[in-house]
Amino acid sequence: MTVDAPTLARQPLWRRALAEFLGSGLLVTVVVGSGIAAQRLSTDAGLQLLENAIATALGLGVLILLFAPVSEAHFNPVVSLADYTLGRRDRAGLTAPALVVYLVAQVAGAICGSILANTMFATPTTISTTDRATLATFLAEIVATAGLVLLIIGLSRTRRSVPAIATAVGAYIGAAYWFTSSTSFANPAVTIGRIFTDTFAGIAPSSALPFIAAQLIGAAIGAGLGILFFSAVSRTAIRKK
Amino acid sequence: MTVDAPTLARQPLWRRALAEFLGSGLLVTVVVGSGIAAQRLSTDAGLQLLENAIATALGLGVLILLFAPVSEAHFNPVVSLADYTLGRRDRAGLTAPALVVYLVAQVAGAICGSILANTMFATPTTISTTDRATLATFLAEIVATAGLVLLIIGLSRTRRSVPAIATAVGAYIGAAYWFTSSTSFANPAVTIGRIFTDTFAGIAPSSALPFIAAQLIGAAIGAGLGILFFSAVSRTAIRKK
Amino acid sequence: MTVDAPTLARQPLWRRALAEFLGSGLLVTVVVGSGIAAQRLSTDAGLQLLENAIATALGLGVLILLFAPVSEAHFNPVVSLADYTLGRRDRAGLTAPALVVYLVAQVAGAICGSILANTMFATPTTISTTDRATLATFLAEIVATAGLVLLIIGLSRTRRSVPAIATAVGAYIGAAYWFTSSTSFANPAVTIGRIFTDTFAGIAPSSALPFIAAQLIGAAIGAGLGILFFSAVSRTAIRKK
Amino acid sequence: MTVDAPTLARQPLWRRALAEFLGSGLLVTVVVGSGIAAQRLSTDAGLQLLENAIATALGLGVLILLFAPVSEAHFNPVVSLADYTLGRRDRAGLTAPALVVYLVAQVAGAICGSILANTMFATPTTISTTDRATLATFLAEIVATAGLVLLIIGLSRTRRSVPAIATAVGAYIGAAYWFTSSTSFANPAVTIGRIFTDTFAGIAPSSALPFIAAQLIGAAIGAGLGILFFSAVSRTAIRKK
Repeated sequence: MTVDAPTLARQPLWRRALAEFLGSGLLVTVVVGSGIAAQRLSTDAGLQLLENAIATALGLGVLILLFAPVSEAHFNPVVSLADYTLGRRDRAGLTAPALVVYLVAQVAGAICGSILANTMFATPTTISTTDRATLATFLAEIVATAGLVLLIIGLSRTRRSVPAIATAVGAYIGAAYWFTSSTSFANPAVTIGRIFTDTFAGIAPSSALPFIAAQLIGAAIGAGLGILFFSAVSRTAIRKK
Repeated sequence: MTVDAPTLARQPLWRRALAEFLGSGLLVTVVVGSGIAAQRLSTDAGLQLLENAIATALGLGVLILLFAPVSEAHFNPVVSLADYTLGRRDRAGLTAPALVVYLVAQVAGAICGSILANTMFATPTTISTTDRATLATFLAEIVATAGLVLLIIGLSRTRRSVPAIATAVGAYIGAAYWFTSSTSFANPAVTIGRIFTDTFAGIAPSSALPFIAAQLIGAAIGAGLGILFFSAVSRTAIRKK
Repeated sequence: MTVDAPTLARQPLWRRALAEFLGSGLLVTVVVGSGIAAQRLSTDAGLQLLENAIATALGLGVLILLFAPVSEAHFNPVVSLADYTLGRRDRAGLTAPALVVYLVAQVAGAICGSILANTMFATPTTISTTDRATLATFLAEIVATAGLVLLIIGLSRTRRSVPAIATAVGAYIGAAYWFTSSTSFANPAVTIGRIFTDTFAGIAPSSALPFIAAQLIGAAIGAGLGILFFSAVSRTAIRKK
Repeated sequence: MTVDAPTLARQPLWRRALAEFLGSGLLVTVVVGSGIAAQRLSTDAGLQLLENAIATALGLGVLILLFAPVSEAHFNPVVSLADYTLGRRDRAGLTAPALVVYLVAQVAGAICGSILANTMFATPTTISTTDRATLATFLAEIVATAGLVLLIIGLSRTRRSVPAIATAVGAYIGAAYWFTSSTSFANPAVTIGRIFTDTFAGIAPSSALPFIAAQLIGAAIGAGLGILFFSAVSRTAIRKK
């Protein structure tokens, strides 16, 4: 995806990978850490989710704003995949080697982020036992991920500013915690990271697999809708303006 | 209404209709889905409404930002009617056939959005039994809709940016959940969609009719106020700047 | 105060007065109405205040954004007084007759807004019996109003955009609900309006008087700080840029 | 750090110091005051923290927006230290005497802000007895401060607008209340100020010392990451554009 804000010229791949590692990691730290705090401090399950959702919406927006000029702030394998697939036409997307580096950095970062959150709250890092897989949450992850990918394609193709994109993506996830029955993971790296904490935000490995499958389906649908709605504007064309 | 952001040139009507269908649908999915989640997770009725309101404010803002360049993101029959009526003078508004297409897409989308939310939460789609019609909520819907239509006319005539409009309309609805006794439906399509769920956000058909009547009255008042306050600036004049 | 956004050229006074009447009125409707809803739906007193504060922060921001191009969206006698006093030097402020019209419109609007909220919630309009006056709340109103006036002077003299000002003023009041012991009325017109509802947001007439006195003291302090910090930039000088 | 918004030319040091004093003070007033209100009004500990976090996020954003054109709105010794250290290369940072003045103003302001909050809530000013020091919160303060310093360096070096920076820093702290186990003090002056209140937001002197040590370590890490990610853009280079 594209950024129309002050970018740091051409970034070396190691720096972009580090930004994806740190950004994905801190995203999971926010999700897991705020979940632990909410669970410890509040008794009402809805209030716990509200605290978790508000912290995530704010934190995600900040991380995108910070790292967008470095790595375009994907923090999400399906976003990188969409960028690799759709961005190739006009040579603005990731190359195949860069895609692999991005995916590895995102997953490694997400796992480390989970461990960091556990450590900050003096909680042992153990595998989650929270089963989340049902037909309903499978559908929910498709919807959540389709919406996220469509949103990112639409906002970047219509050349929104980075602050607007950052705020909107944070707001989308904040809402999606509530309007989906799965609380909207919508991100395979984050899903894997959340395996490594047996707390509020954790997910059992057996549930992670169908979640990721649903996310891939959703991403494909979202990319299709993105082409349908926003293909009229090729990014090259916009850039020539 | 007008958008001053990067627009996708001239959009074909089928794409605009699809955007209205999807946008109205997802708006209802957010309202109904977050209502179900809130009802299941929280016990305090005010906390349930707060969760519902926050999710709606965030989600609506995101949907407007995403689809404004495609269809101008009405998602609401009274907004389309105002655009058809007020926008004709300077040829920027909807044509009569486009108006009909918009209304059909909005209502069909809203119904599908309600069904999608029910399905994501494994809840059967049944007709709501929540009676909401009183004299007080009738007045509340007039106020809520008048405010919404006045807001949209004012912001578009003073040429606010799409991100500013999107945030403001989301914020308005978030506030209106609270300052009106009806929780501010303010949208005939959404009202119809919310008939199709017997959950937190549902409305019985017998209440939907007076709600829609109040919304039409409110829209007329809002349009009148919009002319009173903002007629000095014709959109054509602004565009010539 | 000044607005750097698309303004509607030179507005006639009747239209500005109507905007002040409607804006002040709807502000009180938001405060009182959301207070009634919060009180009815939630049991925890803090949660009630949170609901009240969030609705007010969002609603106030929207009202400023909407009416700033018409009347500069004061909605507050101490803001109009500061504009009259400080703005005279460079002929950008209110004239004496306009000031009187603004004050009358604000107070009349605030009272009507209170009645509208009561009516929407089927609550009779009676005089509040909520005593709020203590030495602590007297100090709190001084601090809250000084901060508000300093904020508005600072943001307008440094030429912030109307959307930024609207968001910031809403955010300030949202925070001030919490960091002051008086829940931050900070507005004589709103204080008078809130006399006319014996609900969550009401204030007894005997408390309104010391609150207004504190607000006037606070406004003077805020204006003094505004000159101290921002006098280097005369508005005329900025406009000539 | 740099501000790209309308600045008040060259500010005299006394005015900048006063802005740092007032800004740091009011920040602590917001933190301590909203904590007292939350503790009095709500029973759920998580809800108290949510109220405290929302008020702080909104209030901090407003204070930065207001005072950035005067003093660059550090309100935090580690931010001033980073500016002194990193900004020297291109002569845009603080001088050594100015640094000392900033630090004194920040600490003095923070203490006064705590006393003001106590007084507004008719609470005596006594030394806090809340022990917060553990290995977990030590790590948390390192993470919270590293993130804050990295964020401020990144946003200022990529030339974000002041409103975007103000919102992002407020949002970061709002999230960090939740994702760290220490509720993210991340500021030595605020830490010292919060010693002077034995209420919700207080911290015992014996805990303040390790907190400040952790903040200094975190600031160094954040500055290192800032150089790693954003050194490619020297501020002078950007300014020449």
